[in-house]
Amino acid sequence: MKTLAMVASGPKAKLEKREIDLGPIGDDQVEIAVESCGICHSDLSLLNNDWGITSYPFVPGHEAVGRIVAVGAHVKHRKVGEKVGLGWYSGSCLGCRSCLAGDHNLCPTAEQTIVGRHGAFAQRVRTHWVWATPLPSGIDEAKAGPLFCGGITVFNPIVQNNIKATDRVGVVGIGGLGHLALQFLNKWGCEVTAFTSSSAKAAEAKSLGAHDTINSTSDADLAKNKGRFDMVLVTANVDLNWPAYLDTLAPKGKLHVVGAVPNPIALPAFPMLVGQKSLGGSPLGSPGLTAKMLEFCGRHKIAPVTETFPMSKANEALHHLESGKARYRIVLTNDLG
Amino acid sequence: MKTLAMVASGPKAKLEKREIDLGPIGDDQVEIAVESCGICHSDLSLLNNDWGITSYPFVPGHEAVGRIVAVGAHVKHRKVGEKVGLGWYSGSCLGCRSCLAGDHNLCPTAEQTIVGRHGAFAQRVRTHWVWATPLPSGIDEAKAGPLFCGGITVFNPIVQNNIKATDRVGVVGIGGLGHLALQFLNKWGCEVTAFTSSSAKAAEAKSLGAHDTINSTSDADLAKNKGRFDMVLVTANVDLNWPAYLDTLAPKGKLHVVGAVPNPIALPAFPMLVGQKSLGGSPLGSPGLTAKMLEFCGRHKIAPVTETFPMSKANEALHHLESGKARYRIVLTNDLG
Repeated sequence: MKTLAMVASGPKAKLEKREIDLGPIGDDQVEIAVESCGICHSDLSLLNNDWGITSYPFVPGHEAVGRIVAVGAHVKHRKVGEKVGLGWYSGSCLGCRSCLAGDHNLCPTAEQTIVGRHGAFAQRVRTHWVWATPLPSGIDEAKAGPLFCGGITVFNPIVQNNIKATDRVGVVGIGGLGHLALQFLNKWGCEVTAFTSSSAKAAEAKSLGAHDTINSTSDADLAKNKGRFDMVLVTANVDLNWPAYLDTLAPKGKLHVVGAVPNPIALPAFPMLVGQKSLGGSPLGSPGLTAKMLEFCGRHKIAPVTETFPMSKANEALHHLESGKARYRIVLTNDLG
Repeated sequence: MKTLAMVASGPKAKLEKREIDLGPIGDDQVEIAVESCGICHSDLSLLNNDWGITSYPFVPGHEAVGRIVAVGAHVKHRKVGEKVGLGWYSGSCLGCRSCLAGDHNLCPTAEQTIVGRHGAFAQRVRTHWVWATPLPSGIDEAKAGPLFCGGITVFNPIVQNNIKATDRVGVVGIGGLGHLALQFLNKWGCEVTAFTSSSAKAAEAKSLGAHDTINSTSDADLAKNKGRFDMVLVTANVDLNWPAYLDTLAPKGKLHVVGAVPNPIALPAFPMLVGQKSLGGSPLGSPGLTAKMLEFCGRHKIAPVTETFPMSKANEALHHLESGKARYRIVLTNDLG
């Protein structure tokens, strides 16, 4: 099966529109005709081989929405014609302890949509059926792509950490992930605080659901908020003053990281012990939770704030993302042919 | 109110038996006639002013068992004649968010039995009534002291981390705390593994409830156990190869520290994210949980393995502890007069 895609031939190469061969469809796979695809910062990281795991020719794209146009011989739970989304994961074994517990996202052999295979900056993309999640009613399809990576990445910690409507939650970094976290947490019923270094974003954060804002780079601001938060969700990919952030937690508070922070996170044991605090992280959520998130979004009219580029202009879109100007998530509309 | 106690006049001074004045009893306090008192490593840390918070003259002792001999004017929930235990905390405000949630151990103004006041190496010791926990039937009173600090310190993480009987749990450091953790976890129904650097202790660990043992200082042993544990409970007060310990955790696994580890704990973000792992810590448990722990001990015949010294020989007992020879917890029997 051949398809047109935006392809990079090596690290940091420009994407070029050309034909790739997806091979025969797997027995458990579905094939999606991509209608749109969000851009995530990890598309850039893989394109540049920042994590040393990229294989070339490389096709980015793991926030896809489209219609199923073919299914493998063993697929029972999805059918041709269904409108679905696809995120970071494109396969799980379904038989390990994690999969059997409903945590397909923690499967040790989980396949990743853009690692060692072709992503969704293409006319067609494949995935194991379990990772093709149907779009429920009430979802704006044109904006839905970013929910499948950015969205579920910040929705998952709310559920995993058992966050309650009575909790006080901080969100660090108001970008593609953070701007969705603010919306989720507001509708979850929480007291929501945005940590951002940008005064322009501080104002926007309130329109997205934040009740309060804090300058994320001001130790004085952090000190004023000692002992306040039940969870601080870090969506930024940067090293922070971690002990100062630990101090902003209430007893039993959780510092939860979803960004690929470059250096090890060092925390003193004593304040963690005394306040029963913790540091954790998580990847994207499971297929079951992705479906629940979509229902939650439909019910509460939650959607990413998006900018749109045609997929053939993916290089310009990536440059826009890299320059830090995206507000808040770029979605590529498929015009490849 | 005067009482005989074992008193240090300054950092690292020998304890001397002499009279101290406890002053008038507080309205919410009870006074306990100490029958026995365990020795915890933190008694040594405070005696030596290792944490810079010791006030002298200093009386150690925060694992006390005895009978209530007096109660303050406002005490309704304890009465003279009750046999009770007292641990690290001797007061909480009862009005803050933590106290109101049942987490009196996380009260920001919690009083600590040997910080800024006199401990239980004495004929009498005082505590707020809420921290005087009655001994249920089935408990060996002579061995019960260490349950009130060492015991509850390792019982609490089992409850706080929602450990289930089907979980695989590792315990690092088989000493005063760890030897109780093995017993608790075995009766909790878990698969229990002892991490120890001592081959002698490895054999003993099995008699205490461990199903398996691992050399805690062998990176090769740790590597063989990658992805195994739902919780690794660190009771040792030492710096470990933290990233290697993180790797021993299963998806969703928790690295939980209760020892006063000297240096910051540095962990790479990536494996925490991918495996949804976390690092946490906790102090002793609440009064409510302490009562439940005692019932659990009574039902399952769990008791510390103890060595006994007369309280007048507290210096010799402390030396025995400091030399690393205690198996596993020293209890002082009161002979002060």
